[in-house]
Amino acid sequence: MSEFEERPAEPYTDQEALAEAALASDISDAVWDEDTGYVRRAVRRLHPADASDVLEQLDNETFSRAVEMLGAQLPTEVLIELRDEFREAAVEALPDDALLVVLEELDSDDATLILEDLEEGRREQLLAAMPEGDRATLEQGLAFDEETAGRLMQREFVAAPEFWTVGHTVDHARERGDDLPESFFEIYVIDPAFRLKGVVPLALIFRSRREMQLSELMEAPVVEVKAEMDQEEVAYLFQKYSLVSAPVIDDNGRLTGMITVDDMVDVIQEENTEDLLALSNVSAAGGTDSTWDTVKARAPWLGINLFTAFLASGVVAIFEGTIEAVVALAVLMPVVAALGGNAGSQALAVAVRAIAERELSGKAAGRAVRRELYTGIVNGTIFAIGVAAIAYLWFRDLELSGVIAVAMFATLVWACLTGILVPLGLKKVGADPAVASSVFVLTAVDIVGFLTFLGLATLVLLR
Amino acid sequence: MSEFEERPAEPYTDQEALAEAALASDISDAVWDEDTGYVRRAVRRLHPADASDVLEQLDNETFSRAVEMLGAQLPTEVLIELRDEFREAAVEALPDDALLVVLEELDSDDATLILEDLEEGRREQLLAAMPEGDRATLEQGLAFDEETAGRLMQREFVAAPEFWTVGHTVDHARERGDDLPESFFEIYVIDPAFRLKGVVPLALIFRSRREMQLSELMEAPVVEVKAEMDQEEVAYLFQKYSLVSAPVIDDNGRLTGMITVDDMVDVIQEENTEDLLALSNVSAAGGTDSTWDTVKARAPWLGINLFTAFLASGVVAIFEGTIEAVVALAVLMPVVAALGGNAGSQALAVAVRAIAERELSGKAAGRAVRRELYTGIVNGTIFAIGVAAIAYLWFRDLELSGVIAVAMFATLVWACLTGILVPLGLKKVGADPAVASSVFVLTAVDIVGFLTFLGLATLVLLR
Repeated sequence: MSEFEERPAEPYTDQEALAEAALASDISDAVWDEDTGYVRRAVRRLHPADASDVLEQLDNETFSRAVEMLGAQLPTEVLIELRDEFREAAVEALPDDALLVVLEELDSDDATLILEDLEEGRREQLLAAMPEGDRATLEQGLAFDEETAGRLMQREFVAAPEFWTVGHTVDHARERGDDLPESFFEIYVIDPAFRLKGVVPLALIFRSRREMQLSELMEAPVVEVKAEMDQEEVAYLFQKYSLVSAPVIDDNGRLTGMITVDDMVDVIQEENTEDLLALSNVSAAGGTDSTWDTVKARAPWLGINLFTAFLASGVVAIFEGTIEAVVALAVLMPVVAALGGNAGSQALAVAVRAIAERELSGKAAGRAVRRELYTGIVNGTIFAIGVAAIAYLWFRDLELSGVIAVAMFATLVWACLTGILVPLGLKKVGADPAVASSVFVLTAVDIVGFLTFLGLATLVLLR
Repeated sequence: MSEFEERPAEPYTDQEALAEAALASDISDAVWDEDTGYVRRAVRRLHPADASDVLEQLDNETFSRAVEMLGAQLPTEVLIELRDEFREAAVEALPDDALLVVLEELDSDDATLILEDLEEGRREQLLAAMPEGDRATLEQGLAFDEETAGRLMQREFVAAPEFWTVGHTVDHARERGDDLPESFFEIYVIDPAFRLKGVVPLALIFRSRREMQLSELMEAPVVEVKAEMDQEEVAYLFQKYSLVSAPVIDDNGRLTGMITVDDMVDVIQEENTEDLLALSNVSAAGGTDSTWDTVKARAPWLGINLFTAFLASGVVAIFEGTIEAVVALAVLMPVVAALGGNAGSQALAVAVRAIAERELSGKAAGRAVRRELYTGIVNGTIFAIGVAAIAYLWFRDLELSGVIAVAMFATLVWACLTGILVPLGLKKVGADPAVASSVFVLTAVDIVGFLTFLGLATLVLLR
C-alpha cells in the first residue's frame, strides 16, 4: 500500500513536475555511476505511467543507457507507456533476449506495437525465435492495416459456449487462472464455429446464481467491430454506446479479438489533436521535440499559403490607383482581413467539430448552412455598424464609412458561408474536412474582402 | 438477438442518416396521429443511443408532444442519451409522476443531471415527494460544484470489508442481485470507518478461489479521486492510468462514490471541443441550433477583435506617406499578415495542445520556447527568400524585395515566439491558455509585421 500513501494530493502541479525532474536527475546520476540497483528500484517503485514520465525527462543518451542497463528488468508496462519516440529508442537499445521476454509477456496488441518499431530484419529474426503459436498470432495482427480494429485488438479474451452455466464458467476460470487476460469486463458467448452469439458482462456473472446458463444471461452485442474497421469509427462506437470493451469479428464472422476502452481513449485524444492541429495548418508529425520535425510539420502549409497570399495580393494590385488616391483604404484593409478571417475561422471550427461529432449529415447540414447565413447577416450588421463608426470618428468621411460598412457586411456573410461550405465540400469528396480548409477559407475571405472593399471604394470614392 | 442482425454493416454513412430521417418522419406522423403504441415500439426497439438520435431529428413541437405521449414509458436510458437541449425540453414536457419514476430508476449521477434541468420550485417539489434516503443522496450530489468529481460520480458502487472471502462476496452479491449497480468493474475494500483500503478488479474475483480473502487480492488504488476535484483533472487521471472506474473519497477520507470511464470519455471530448473552439474564438455555448446562440458565442470575440484590428490599422496609418509614395507596399501587406498569422496560429495550436497534454511544465517549457525560436528562424529564412523572390519577379525592385525579406523573417520569428509565449503566460496567471490567445497572437503578429515591413520601407525606399 506504500504507493497509495505516496501519491501527491494534487494530480498535477508544478511541484509534481519539479519532483519528477529531481527524480530524473537522480536516475541520470545513477545511470552514469552504473548503479543498476538504484535505477531498477526507482523505476519499479512508481506506477508504470509515472515511471515512463520520469524516464522521458532523461536526455537521449542517458535514456538509452538506462534501458540497456535494465534490459529485461525494465518492466514491460513502463515500455508500453513510453511516448512513441522514446519507446522506439528503448526497443532499439534492448538486446534481443530482453525483447523476446517482453514480447512474450505483453498482450498481443502491445506486442504488435513493439514489433512495428523494429526494422524488418530484426523483426523477422525475433519472430523466428518465438514459439509457433505466439508467432502466428502476432503475424496475423501485423497483417492488418495500421489504424484498424485488427491492429488495435488483443487476441486475449474470454469466450464460452452458450450451454455453460455460471458455475462451470467460474470453475473453469479458477482453473485457468493466470492464462486469462489480466483485464477484461465481459465474457463472449460463442457457438462451435466461434461465431459470437452474445455477451455477458462480468458484473452479471458476479451476481447470478451458479446454475444459470450463459444463454439465459447473455445480451445481444451492442456493436460487433469488424477487424478492418477504421480506428476512428471504432472510437466513435465506444463513445456513442458507452462501451468498455467490444468483440472484434473477422471476415468469416468468427470472434477474433477484443478492443478495450483505454485504447479508444487514446484514439479519441489522437483524432482530436489531429483535428485541432490540422485546423491551424500543422501536420501531425511523429516527433515533436526536434526543430526539424517541427519545420517539416509546418513549412509545407506555409508554402501553400505563400501562393494563396499572393492571390489576395493580386486583388489588391488591381486597385493600386484607388489606394494611391485614398491612402486610408490601405490603413483600413487590415481591419477587413482580420475581422473576416476571424469570422471564417469561427464558422470553420464549429463545422469541423460538428462533422467530427457526426452532427452534419442529411438535413442537419442544410440547417447548419442556413444558420451560418443568418449568423453572418446578424454579425455582419453589427460589425458593419461598429467598423463604420470607428472609421468615421477617425477619418470623418461618410462615404468611406459607408464603403467599409458594406464591405464588412459582405465579407462577414461570405466568411460564415465559406467557413461551413469548404469543410462540407471536403467531406463530400471524401477528404478530411479539417485539413487544408483553413488556408482556403482565409484566402477566400481575404479575396472577397479586398475585392468588395477596394472595388466599392473605386466606384464610390473615385467618381 | 434481433437488434444484432439489424445493425448496418457500416457504422455511420449517409444511408444510415437517411434511414434515421425516414424513421423520424414515421414517428412524427404517428405522434400527430396520436398512435402512442407505434411511437413506444419504435423507441424501445432501438438502442437508447440510437433512439435518442432519432428523437433529436423531430422538430421541437413534435418532440415535446412525443415525450408527453410516452410519459413514464419513455425509457430512462433514452432520456439520458439525449443532447442537453433536448433533455431539458423532455424534462419540461414530462409530468411530475413520470419524472419521479425516472428519478427513482436512474443511477444517482444521471438523476442529478435531471434535477439540474429543473427550475428550483419544481425540483424542491419533486425532491420532497421522494423517499427520504434517495432524497438525501441526491441533495448531497447537488451540493457539489458543477464539473467536479462529486457531481459526476454515482453513489452506487460495491464495497466489502477486507476479511471477506471471494466466496462470501460472491454469495452476498447473488443474494442482493438487483440492488447492485447495473455496471461496475471493481470491488472496493473498506475498513469499518468506510475508508478505502484497496481495490479488487472483478476479473480477479472471477478467477480466484472461493477461500481467498479480499485483503490478499486487493491492490492499492491507482488513484483516489477527491470529490471536489475538477472533472478535467479526473479525466486526465483516467487517461494517464488507463482506468475504467475510480473510487471517489470525501473530505474525511471516506469512500463516497464511483466514477466510470464512459463519463470521462464525454468529459475528454467536451474539453477537446472547448479547446478547439476557443482557439478559433468561439465560446462553448450551450445550444448550437439557433442563430441567436451562435451569435452570442461569436460576437463578443469579434468585438474584441474589432478594437485590436484597429490597433494594427493605427500602425499602418503611421506610414501613410510611405504607402502613398510606394503603393506596392499596400499590395504586399496582405502577404506579410497572412503568412505571419499562419505561423502564429501553428505555434499557438501546438502550444495549447502540449499544455493540455501536460507536456509543457518545468524544463520542457524552456525547451519548447527554444524550439519555436529555431523553427521561426528556419521557416523565417525559407519564406523570406520565397516571398522576396516572388516580389522581385513581380515588381523588379531589389530594395523592395530586400525589405519584405527582412520583414518576413522578423515576423515569422516573432509569430512563433508569441504563439508559444502567450499561452504559456496565460497558463502562468491561471487563465485558460486557449481562450483569447488567438486574438492576441494575431494582433501582435499584424502589428510587428506591419511595423517592420513599412518601417524598413520608410528607411530604405524613401531615402
